[in-house]
Amino acid sequence: MTDDNILSQYRDSIDNIDAALVCMLAERFKVTQAVGEYKASANLPPADPAREERQIARLRQLAKDAKLDPDFTEKFLRFIIDEVIRHHRQISSKES
Amino acid sequence: MTDDNILSQYRDSIDNIDAALVCMLAERFKVTQAVGEYKASANLPPADPAREERQIARLRQLAKDAKLDPDFTEKFLRFIIDEVIRHHRQISSKES
Repeated sequence: MTDDNILSQYRDSIDNIDAALVCMLAERFKVTQAVGEYKASANLPPADPAREERQIARLRQLAKDAKLDPDFTEKFLRFIIDEVIRHHRQISSKES
Repeated sequence: MTDDNILSQYRDSIDNIDAALVCMLAERFKVTQAVGEYKASANLPPADPAREERQIARLRQLAKDAKLDPDFTEKFLRFIIDEVIRHHRQISSKES
C-alpha cells in the first residue's frame, strides 16, 4: 500500500465515525430540546448540577472501559452540557 | 405519566446516546492514534490545515442535513481536532 493510501484509509474511517457522531449529536439535541421545553413549562431550572455530577461519573467509567481518556471525556460532556444549558436558557426566556 | 417519569425517560435516552458517543469517540481516537504514529514515522506534520478545512465543510453540511447547528458542529470538530493534534505532538516528540 502506498503512503497516500494508508493515510487515506485512516481518514475514510475518521470521516465515517464523524458522520455517526454528528447524527448522534443531532439526536441528543432533539431530546435535550424536549427536556428544555418540558423544564420551561414545569418551571424547572435550566441546569441540574446533581444530574451533571452523575453523568460525569458514569461517562468517566464508560470512558475507562472503552479505553478513552476520562479527563477528555469529562471535558467533552461539559462542552455539550454548556451548549444544552444555553439552549434551555433561550427556551426559558422565550416562555417567561 | 408523572412529571418525574417524563424527565426520567428523556434522561434514559440521553444516557444511551452518551454511551454511544463515548464509544464512537474511543474508536475515533484509536484511528487518530494510528494516524499519529504513521505521521511521526513518515515525518509528516501533526496538523493538516487543508484536511481540516475539508472536514469542517463536510461536517457543516452533514449537520444541516441532520438539523444540527453547523456552528456548534464546527466548534465540536475543532474541540476534537485540538485534542488529536495534542496527541500527535506527543507521539512526534517521543519519536524524535
